Amino acid sequence: MTAENKPRLEVCLSPALLHLFDVKNSIVVIIDVLRATSTICTALYNGAAKIIPVASVEECVSIGKQLNAITAGERDGKIAAGLEHGNSPFEYPREFIEDKVLVLTTTNGTKLLHMAKDAIQIITGSFPNLDAVCEYLVSQGQNVILGCAAWKDRVNMEDTLFAGAVVSRIKEHFDVNCDSAIAAENLYDSGKADLFEFIKKASHFQRLAKFGLEEDIRYCLTPNGANVLPILRNGELVVG
Amino acid sequence: MTAENKPRLEVCLSPALLHLFDVKNSIVVIIDVLRATSTICTALYNGAAKIIPVASVEECVSIGKQLNAITAGERDGKIAAGLEHGNSPFEYPREFIEDKVLVLTTTNGTKLLHMAKDAIQIITGSFPNLDAVCEYLVSQGQNVILGCAAWKDRVNMEDTLFAGAVVSRIKEHFDVNCDSAIAAENLYDSGKADLFEFIKKASHFQRLAKFGLEEDIRYCLTPNGANVLPILRNGELVVG
Repeated sequence: MTAENKPRLEVCLSPALLHLFDVKNSIVVIIDVLRATSTICTALYNGAAKIIPVASVEECVSIGKQLNAITAGERDGKIAAGLEHGNSPFEYPREFIEDKVLVLTTTNGTKLLHMAKDAIQIITGSFPNLDAVCEYLVSQGQNVILGCAAWKDRVNMEDTLFAGAVVSRIKEHFDVNCDSAIAAENLYDSGKADLFEFIKKASHFQRLAKFGLEEDIRYCLTPNGANVLPILRNGELVVG
Repeated sequence: MTAENKPRLEVCLSPALLHLFDVKNSIVVIIDVLRATSTICTALYNGAAKIIPVASVEECVSIGKQLNAITAGERDGKIAAGLEHGNSPFEYPREFIEDKVLVLTTTNGTKLLHMAKDAIQIITGSFPNLDAVCEYLVSQGQNVILGCAAWKDRVNMEDTLFAGAVVSRIKEHFDVNCDSAIAAENLYDSGKADLFEFIKKASHFQRLAKFGLEEDIRYCLTPNGANVLPILRNGELVVG
């Protein structure tokens, strides 16, 4: 197959660059490795009925009341005032989350998710569901945008690394004419032998490590611990 | 010296991200490796009196007439209608450019230059003047933003590589708490053994190679062939 016959695979390193991409004709993968999308697949893997991503703490509280759901979300690394739970995947074991509805707001991930609403399909990606994401993307044969949630629009290491991991696994099925994708893959190749060591250089590691979240980070960098595909249907993330 | 005492060194991968940086309190290095900033230092190295960067072809023509200067610029890789010369560094040997004024407009570089106008100082960087840029930045002791001109706001390989080359050389003098800088350095480290081979993967290489510009690209990836410091003074680039 020539490059021309293959769908495109591109990496958008920041929500502030998303307008440069043809969102409407692509599947968009929302990537917020530390920790929103890692937590989303973990909660669904552990049996959550669905996850409703919302932009604001107010919405989170109000929808949570309406549905008698669990409300969760952080602002600057701490549980936001008025919410019950945080962004740690370890807060959502099966005995707690099974069959429950989770309403979730995060600083960066939900913002990007709302920005990408015109996409063919929105899914979420993170190391714990790496294989599920890759298999889905290859099976669909559509253009793909790997959308890094970043940190307040700043390019970050962990989301770029995950985008690179995906590129590295599925690139032969796509036309990759995107320097960000090539750079992300290169970064992943440099770090993959020990992602935890590699990410210690990153700004967000230092931010989270202050809160004692090294175990969270280790989990969020380990492939396939919660290998389901969260897919957005009518504004709700469910297992695809 | 602790990190806190050192000035910041950051990399801005696209003009569309420049608003995230503290331009006003930084020296901004404009990077447009293929080929505007490579050509700028080459023309100055070869004795050009000054270079006036302008945003539009119309301005270029009008200022060119006014000053009886050489007008140059490209749009999408070809000399723009109404202008005399292109973006190739080989168009500006000493016997042609010495003591002349060059009015230059480019797709990406001049745009970023105008966006960064509030910076403490603006200089231009490229491989042909790599050492001059590094020495200047270290000598100033100010915060630095390495500003990639990118390609129509899309992150590109060649500008990121140059930013990485600078980070790699001067990082110990700065506080580098910027994931883009770490990623750029990593990319440069992967490619530095043979930048020309490395960049063949890049989208812009393919664009320029179509026009037969491989020799331009080789020159633009070679360090210190025109080692002067272009510095912006009153809207004009002169040797600093």
